[in-house]
Amino acid sequence: MSEDQLILQRKFPITSRHADFKSELRISSLINDYIQIAWQHAEELGLGYLHLKEQGLGWVLSRFTLNLDYLPKWPGEIEIKTWPKGMNRLFYLRDAEIFNEGKKFASITSAWLIFDINSKRPKVLYQDRPYLHSLADKHAIDEITPSLKTEGIPVESMEHEIRYNDIDVNLHLTTVRYLDFLLDSYDIEFIRKNPPKKLRVNFLKEVAFGDKTVLQRLENEKIHSFELSTPGKNAINFRAEITY
Amino acid sequence: MSEDQLILQRKFPITSRHADFKSELRISSLINDYIQIAWQHAEELGLGYLHLKEQGLGWVLSRFTLNLDYLPKWPGEIEIKTWPKGMNRLFYLRDAEIFNEGKKFASITSAWLIFDINSKRPKVLYQDRPYLHSLADKHAIDEITPSLKTEGIPVESMEHEIRYNDIDVNLHLTTVRYLDFLLDSYDIEFIRKNPPKKLRVNFLKEVAFGDKTVLQRLENEKIHSFELSTPGKNAINFRAEITY
Repeated sequence: MSEDQLILQRKFPITSRHADFKSELRISSLINDYIQIAWQHAEELGLGYLHLKEQGLGWVLSRFTLNLDYLPKWPGEIEIKTWPKGMNRLFYLRDAEIFNEGKKFASITSAWLIFDINSKRPKVLYQDRPYLHSLADKHAIDEITPSLKTEGIPVESMEHEIRYNDIDVNLHLTTVRYLDFLLDSYDIEFIRKNPPKKLRVNFLKEVAFGDKTVLQRLENEKIHSFELSTPGKNAINFRAEITY
Repeated sequence: MSEDQLILQRKFPITSRHADFKSELRISSLINDYIQIAWQHAEELGLGYLHLKEQGLGWVLSRFTLNLDYLPKWPGEIEIKTWPKGMNRLFYLRDAEIFNEGKKFASITSAWLIFDINSKRPKVLYQDRPYLHSLADKHAIDEITPSLKTEGIPVESMEHEIRYNDIDVNLHLTTVRYLDFLLDSYDIEFIRKNPPKKLRVNFLKEVAFGDKTVLQRLENEKIHSFELSTPGKNAINFRAEITY
């Protein structure tokens, strides 16, 4: 498979629903576009949702890092360029560069797992897909997203019960909604004055319909840490870190 | 202007984020697609967002009715066909028919206002736009959405504080989030067993960032009524009615 076939480029409109009160693209919308192109690329590479489902398998986004120069404005469009970047232990890596009016404004590196739907255990299918490794040295961000810690001074706590519009086809909290919660924990003045420069995320344990979640925000100068938990189930579901 | 120029047709993908736990298109995503095409059509007809903003004016969706035969499944796409349908008092009317795999599954009639951004009062610009009236007899649904009442037995009450991801460029609760709240008030089993047949909506008064809203659901057999209010401001912001 040629390098061209291993890189997918696609444009996404910035619609009014994707824009926040500053007319800027929401980070959760940007990541939603990225997830869409990643799914589409998996389809084209023969590892798509339906293909895996036949074998009782599924994809899950486990970790990612997003570096941001700025957020483009509505109305407009973004272009995402993405490629698979080999493996690290059980993780399938995928990177992306994101452009607005021809200028790169963001980079992503992400780590995905293929899991067995019944056992919920990760599974590796890479042996028969050598092409997944051919761009292993092409980095948008040259790092593996680390395991995050929950550090800093606790400043905010937000409760949310998981409802119909929060969940996906697996009855679990949708990736995009985790990210919504991060910025939902701020007042408007903070968001107005502080553009995020870097976001790191670890998805740890699925959240189900009806779960009563608590999002804690902790601050350590320019680095804010987040932890989403379900106290009733005694679980930590998600960690994230935003650098301002 | 010919009839062809007054009818806009556009396809929208059903992505994973648009699909609910049954793999069916979410109603709020359907209405979001409809709002996107309505905005685009207003642009093409010379009454778009930027054009109005220059004059200190804006569009607001005031009322709509959606008739639904069924909701199509992810992965897939829908095609929306829409046209302006003249006026009724201060309302600019717009209808739509929505197709999936060539088959019509939904119809919409909607009523919009042009308002003065400073005074917040409705304004009429129709005098110099005779073409807006040429399809006044072409109905997807032959009715004007009525003023809704709050009727039935109160069964559910849901509180929500308005946060970053709920608001639009005007710092007001986004249309789509009002609609999210309707289905968020149900348990999963009800949604699994009861496909909605008709939705009617009245947007009455804007909701602002930080507002603490309460959504009440009342039931009268197959008709469920909803009222969104902000008790702290003593206001009724929104009414809706779903027929099952």
